[in-house]
Amino acid sequence: MDLSSSLATPQALRGGSLTGPLAAHAARRRSVQLLLRPRRPTARCSVDAAKQQVQGPPAAVTAEAEAEAAPGKECFGVFCTTYDLKADEKTRSWKKLVNVAVSGAAGMISNHLLFKLASGEVFGQDQPIALKLLGSERSLQALEGVAMELEDSLYPLLREVSIGIDPYVVFEDADWALLIGAKPRGPGVERAALLDINGQIFAEQGKALNAVASRNVKVIVVGNPCNTNALICLKNAPNLQAKNFHALTRLDENRAKCQLALKAGVFYDKVSNMTIWGNHSTTQVPDFLNAKIDGKPVKEVIKDTKWLEEDFTVTVQKRGGVLIQKWGRSSAASTAVSIVDAMRSLVTPTPEGDWFSTGVYTTGNPYGIAEDIVFSMPCRSKGDGDYELVKDVVMDDFLWGRIKKSEVELIAEKRCVAHLTGEGNAFCDLPGDTMLPGEM
Amino acid sequence: MDLSSSLATPQALRGGSLTGPLAAHAARRRSVQLLLRPRRPTARCSVDAAKQQVQGPPAAVTAEAEAEAAPGKECFGVFCTTYDLKADEKTRSWKKLVNVAVSGAAGMISNHLLFKLASGEVFGQDQPIALKLLGSERSLQALEGVAMELEDSLYPLLREVSIGIDPYVVFEDADWALLIGAKPRGPGVERAALLDINGQIFAEQGKALNAVASRNVKVIVVGNPCNTNALICLKNAPNLQAKNFHALTRLDENRAKCQLALKAGVFYDKVSNMTIWGNHSTTQVPDFLNAKIDGKPVKEVIKDTKWLEEDFTVTVQKRGGVLIQKWGRSSAASTAVSIVDAMRSLVTPTPEGDWFSTGVYTTGNPYGIAEDIVFSMPCRSKGDGDYELVKDVVMDDFLWGRIKKSEVELIAEKRCVAHLTGEGNAFCDLPGDTMLPGEM
Repeated sequence: MDLSSSLATPQALRGGSLTGPLAAHAARRRSVQLLLRPRRPTARCSVDAAKQQVQGPPAAVTAEAEAEAAPGKECFGVFCTTYDLKADEKTRSWKKLVNVAVSGAAGMISNHLLFKLASGEVFGQDQPIALKLLGSERSLQALEGVAMELEDSLYPLLREVSIGIDPYVVFEDADWALLIGAKPRGPGVERAALLDINGQIFAEQGKALNAVASRNVKVIVVGNPCNTNALICLKNAPNLQAKNFHALTRLDENRAKCQLALKAGVFYDKVSNMTIWGNHSTTQVPDFLNAKIDGKPVKEVIKDTKWLEEDFTVTVQKRGGVLIQKWGRSSAASTAVSIVDAMRSLVTPTPEGDWFSTGVYTTGNPYGIAEDIVFSMPCRSKGDGDYELVKDVVMDDFLWGRIKKSEVELIAEKRCVAHLTGEGNAFCDLPGDTMLPGEM
Repeated sequence: MDLSSSLATPQALRGGSLTGPLAAHAARRRSVQLLLRPRRPTARCSVDAAKQQVQGPPAAVTAEAEAEAAPGKECFGVFCTTYDLKADEKTRSWKKLVNVAVSGAAGMISNHLLFKLASGEVFGQDQPIALKLLGSERSLQALEGVAMELEDSLYPLLREVSIGIDPYVVFEDADWALLIGAKPRGPGVERAALLDINGQIFAEQGKALNAVASRNVKVIVVGNPCNTNALICLKNAPNLQAKNFHALTRLDENRAKCQLALKAGVFYDKVSNMTIWGNHSTTQVPDFLNAKIDGKPVKEVIKDTKWLEEDFTVTVQKRGGVLIQKWGRSSAASTAVSIVDAMRSLVTPTPEGDWFSTGVYTTGNPYGIAEDIVFSMPCRSKGDGDYELVKDVVMDDFLWGRIKKSEVELIAEKRCVAHLTGEGNAFCDLPGDTMLPGEM
């Protein structure tokens, strides 16, 4: 995949040299620094080489000795403090700091997710973490509020928190980028319009990742329409590996497992090998052909074929809508849980014989699904952040027919955003509204 | 303490016999059952003796075989499934199920807390958990939404979720009761009026705990004014141990630690021995005399005495208000974290030489604080759910003078709620408004 020549703003893709848009970003970055310099005069910002210095016993601090914070990056409050993990017996054996960037960081999903990340739920109790929060100018105050709550939570693993509104700053050295922020679909907005509006955000963020993130960054796109947003993002980041871009279908997988368990009258931990195929939309295919209950094929346990073929998928898909009706808000908490699950599936070995679903780049897939789109498929991981597609799945006409429908939709979505992927003029001819109920 | 003879409704305190108010509750309970029977026809409720049955391989389920759910308790959806932890190799070595009741379960603090509890953050990865959610008639739909999101999260440790609006049902066999729900203070509502309104809720909940909870239940009161609410609660539960009732001051402690760290230019994990003394109000006393930074007395590290004596406490107390300004909402996430911290401090041994703060019953305290109120003090735990007050603290006139002010306030609050604690007629003469900024 080499698209750099055909992309809308090829300058941005050179990877790090401060010309064109990047130079403009550098200027913006300086002004953002000014805006974000910690308000508290006692905070000393040093998220840089100084972080490696040994910190001796704390020196006496007097009112006079409090110098103005040195201009640095957008660290926040107590997270600007210097420390040395190697100097402290409790933290000496910890791993190297992992940088996790989160967009839409002032939103409700992030409000759950950030505290889970900080607590060690994803990476374990020996993995210190830096959270890099990306918001908008409008949400900047709220981001500070989030950072304050993270301070007040005293998580030992959380070592750095920075906030900002420029992806070229916030994504710097990111090992993970969790792209949650997206414009919600207002009343009367067509899916095509949403693809364009949000697609532009993800094109920009793809460019920023391409320029400044870790070369091995794992990207999880949550903002909708997430499959095509992930495609746009990876197309704008040609220097990164396409296979490291994911579209989140884990909440769909979790909901599908729960509904199969409920139908079979078993606890949800008995359901395995659940695949969500395709788009995170109403064309998605929760796969009851390959899924298992207590190690047996679902169809041997649930004999109600009509329910499996008709009601099951609808129930999974309507879940978000029902939840909004009940709870009055969209499902922020369980979405955050599913992001944690998706990350954990990549950093811990997949249990023997099982798999998980994630929307990934199709080029090279063994199933015969069209190449060059982002499609949810069954995967396994050794726990190293990488994954491989599962080969031993079975197909029948019913399953394959539904997979094809989702494929057709994703190819149509791709044509809608050709102007954002560097593939010429967009031509948008989408089928009916396939947005999942309850999605923002 | 034997107050049963003077309590407003002594019948409720007999502990389990279905006479008087309890009989009325039993009737209400039947109607609540009807209201709450899971809507999904496939759910089979059996949070009872059947839970102990061995579940064999799942039987085939057909549309015809789906009988109407048997009337049982208010279990929800997949959590009504039968299972046997002893029959499964993965769960065989797990501990006995712990019952955690949460009031205000549809609110934002709970929305963070419940998922933390379910993930094992408090009790560890071998402790299965039952969540018993208490809401109001108005929040019942929202409670169902919360239960649905808990289902969709597939937490292996979360084995039972029930929802209800009657504390006499929801608190049954509770090992923990986290009392978060309380009326927020509307505009123009005096603290005295709030004490009366919320005090009635906590009197009722105390009676319910007394009647149906585990005899060893640990109660953490979060709803404000939490110290006096905890006092009311324990006075209405004479058959439970007064020392097991806590008022949450842990968020104050966490904030105080963070502010000392920030001032000293160290990371927050260097601050220890932090006590919040007194009321969870503006009379609270964050104790910089006994606190330590990197093992040294705070005063040796922070020489700015004016900041310690004047600004420090104000900064800690204003934190909630600043946060609301920034974030637009009150601090739900960090409050939930502090509840987790408070619980974990009781179920894990306190690190050597350190302590934590919690608002507990003063009778028998070694400091000379007035007896028979709930006052935040320094505690240590062996990790068995119990705690002891720390004896080796130092006092000076400055610290003692401030402790006395908080004591005076709590004694005045107690007089305001005498009608709710069975101690005669209330007489309310409170000083100015001491509600913490940003508190509901």
